[in-house]
Amino acid sequence: MGSQPNVGNAPHVVILGAGFAGLAAARALRRAPVRITIVDRRNHHLFQPLLYQVATAALNPADIAYPIRSVLRSQQNARTILARVTGIDLSQRRVDLLDGSLTYDYLLVATGATHSYFGKDEWEAWAPGLKTIEDALEIRRRVLSAFEAAERLPDDTHLLETLTFVVVGAGPTGVELAGALSEIGRLTVAKDFRRFDPRRLRVVLVEGADRVLPPYSPKLSADAQRQLERLGVEVRTAARVTRIDQSGVWLGDEHIAARTVLWAAGVAASPLGKALMVPVDRAGRVTVEPDLSVPGHPNVFVVGDLMHRVQGEQALPGIAPVALQSGHHAAKNIRALVTGRATMPFRYRDKGSLATIGRAAAVGKVGKVELSGYLAWWLWWLIHIAYLIGFRNRIVVMMGWAWQYFAFSRGARLITGRSWEPNRPPDPPKV
Amino acid sequence: MGSQPNVGNAPHVVILGAGFAGLAAARALRRAPVRITIVDRRNHHLFQPLLYQVATAALNPADIAYPIRSVLRSQQNARTILARVTGIDLSQRRVDLLDGSLTYDYLLVATGATHSYFGKDEWEAWAPGLKTIEDALEIRRRVLSAFEAAERLPDDTHLLETLTFVVVGAGPTGVELAGALSEIGRLTVAKDFRRFDPRRLRVVLVEGADRVLPPYSPKLSADAQRQLERLGVEVRTAARVTRIDQSGVWLGDEHIAARTVLWAAGVAASPLGKALMVPVDRAGRVTVEPDLSVPGHPNVFVVGDLMHRVQGEQALPGIAPVALQSGHHAAKNIRALVTGRATMPFRYRDKGSLATIGRAAAVGKVGKVELSGYLAWWLWWLIHIAYLIGFRNRIVVMMGWAWQYFAFSRGARLITGRSWEPNRPPDPPKV
Repeated sequence: MGSQPNVGNAPHVVILGAGFAGLAAARALRRAPVRITIVDRRNHHLFQPLLYQVATAALNPADIAYPIRSVLRSQQNARTILARVTGIDLSQRRVDLLDGSLTYDYLLVATGATHSYFGKDEWEAWAPGLKTIEDALEIRRRVLSAFEAAERLPDDTHLLETLTFVVVGAGPTGVELAGALSEIGRLTVAKDFRRFDPRRLRVVLVEGADRVLPPYSPKLSADAQRQLERLGVEVRTAARVTRIDQSGVWLGDEHIAARTVLWAAGVAASPLGKALMVPVDRAGRVTVEPDLSVPGHPNVFVVGDLMHRVQGEQALPGIAPVALQSGHHAAKNIRALVTGRATMPFRYRDKGSLATIGRAAAVGKVGKVELSGYLAWWLWWLIHIAYLIGFRNRIVVMMGWAWQYFAFSRGARLITGRSWEPNRPPDPPKV
Repeated sequence: MGSQPNVGNAPHVVILGAGFAGLAAARALRRAPVRITIVDRRNHHLFQPLLYQVATAALNPADIAYPIRSVLRSQQNARTILARVTGIDLSQRRVDLLDGSLTYDYLLVATGATHSYFGKDEWEAWAPGLKTIEDALEIRRRVLSAFEAAERLPDDTHLLETLTFVVVGAGPTGVELAGALSEIGRLTVAKDFRRFDPRRLRVVLVEGADRVLPPYSPKLSADAQRQLERLGVEVRTAARVTRIDQSGVWLGDEHIAARTVLWAAGVAASPLGKALMVPVDRAGRVTVEPDLSVPGHPNVFVVGDLMHRVQGEQALPGIAPVALQSGHHAAKNIRALVTGRATMPFRYRDKGSLATIGRAAAVGKVGKVELSGYLAWWLWWLIHIAYLIGFRNRIVVMMGWAWQYFAFSRGARLITGRSWEPNRPPDPPKV
């Protein structure tokens, strides 16, 4: 890997992944007597909770993404490298990269998870998911192109299916996408077209469980469904998707004709979980010890969405607060080991969670108090702004939202990427 | 094309291209008794003078691009369609689209120009040009990836060529790019890397003529060169590029080893100029009558960068003020024809022009007064903000620049698009 300005004899901590968990760990080690190398195949940390806002044209990619090396600029014991990890050899304490390798004294794996099509990977071509900036731009392109295609239709025969958007999965991401799509048609582009009324769009939210936002209480689920329906979203619970293709979505025998289908269901852990050759759960997440280390390897930790850890009766969910707390805790345990102390078990402190639905619509709980509507939405907004990394981004995102809220406008309504070819079904995404 | 809400019997004006010229024409016809259809293959109007700021990570795409149908939202006699034009039949008064056709009473062609590689199209793979949002994002990706690759080098053997950026062509775009590249290395990312000092970057600006910014006076050219050199840019005038490949640029026998080469030379008119089957100049621009109509077709106008029109001793340059004024003028002439009056000859009023070089560095003239340095830069800044379409964009761009100026930071430093693969030469761009 060449000469390092900060080599010395300090133990080498390698962190894989610069999401919430990896960055929290790197920062928690800023005064520790270690050398840190953080590896990511992207040059930016992504504020994933707001990714749906890029997909729905409210925010720019750079509003929610920040160069990793800027975040760590002043942390002299950390260096960042842009690389693709191809394997991990726990016995040799080595991480293999596409173009080299790294040896470590302590390893922290925080490479997260992506969506899963439950074995139906052919659905991805027709129903893209939302995990990266590129995913968000592809979804934005498809959503805006649907309205453009409607403007070019020779008659009304195919208008409804062109303006139908199906979102599969009613977890937080699915609920946010469905609410935002409805607002785009009913508010943002309402006056932009001449041939049709964009308010005629149809948004269908499909969920396999018997209610939306299953991790919340039944009361909050009912509140969320009411708020979605007020925004014009059709909610279909206890509905199993059996097929997705160019023509739309099948729920058993029922066919929903739709030009645009978005996927917000399923979780598949990063393949690096399996590459560790230790026990994983069905989604590929690594079952960790109470101190977040890997069984049999006290110097290797797995945190964030890639970690499987049961607390109380349930596995900890793949959400940002769990990632932040587990990354921070594993770093503290590495620091303990380096200084000859014992590691401590991890305990997640649930401070609450909020799911937004649309303008002034949200549900959630703070501690044991359940909230919904306007107050929940304001709280959601404040918390997300407060957590956004980088002062500049905070101002710009606040301004973007204020503008959008008062003017019903969305600033990032660009169709970029592939050229416009009308009346053609969306292409399978590049693999 | 299906039913139109605003059909009526009013004459049909078809405008091809929603750049400065096409949009200026559409707006000038807002109270005319005509139906307007504006056709573009992009959904956004692009503020091209600031495109280099996206390429150099200072601005977001959405800061300088705005949905065409938002611009024309309240203009009830205009509709926008997203389509690709495949041909024009002047005798049948018909525009052929990839998926349909349009008949017109009046046609205004404003599809502009792109860069030209003087017959060496194979150079494009190694030296991308800057005309679209996608071009800008590709250049941004290459520039930021060069620094990442330097951080991954095993030793210093290839450091200099990895950090060498060659810009071909010292017109306004080339000068802006060279100045901005130098600032990225010397200011923006100066403290972000551990293995090398980004201030060691080398920026070479190559120009075939004997001075930079040839359209300006020799004194302003000398001022501009001095300001570029103060920013650390190596200026090579009277230098002819004979070859570009993976290893860099050849000027005759001299080889400049460079990982990153950018192209800012040459002009090739849109192919729709030749498709009209009327006389064109060497670059493919259409020679127009004094009233901007096409010889023999008084109902067809060509404006903006696609137009060839000599005024005084020189052909009018392909710049935004010429596009705005010619688009506006052609629209007035269409209005005259519709209401039975005679058309008027076009006369370009040169109010001056400015070229920016870097922080507080610019040259230009206003009327007959020549300016350079700080004052020219402030004026450039004010004029460009004033012309940007859309209130939101003005505030966001102003904030982005203010932030960049005071914090030496660039907010849009994302590497997106293709995955990271280190130590590999840049791919040929998709065609």
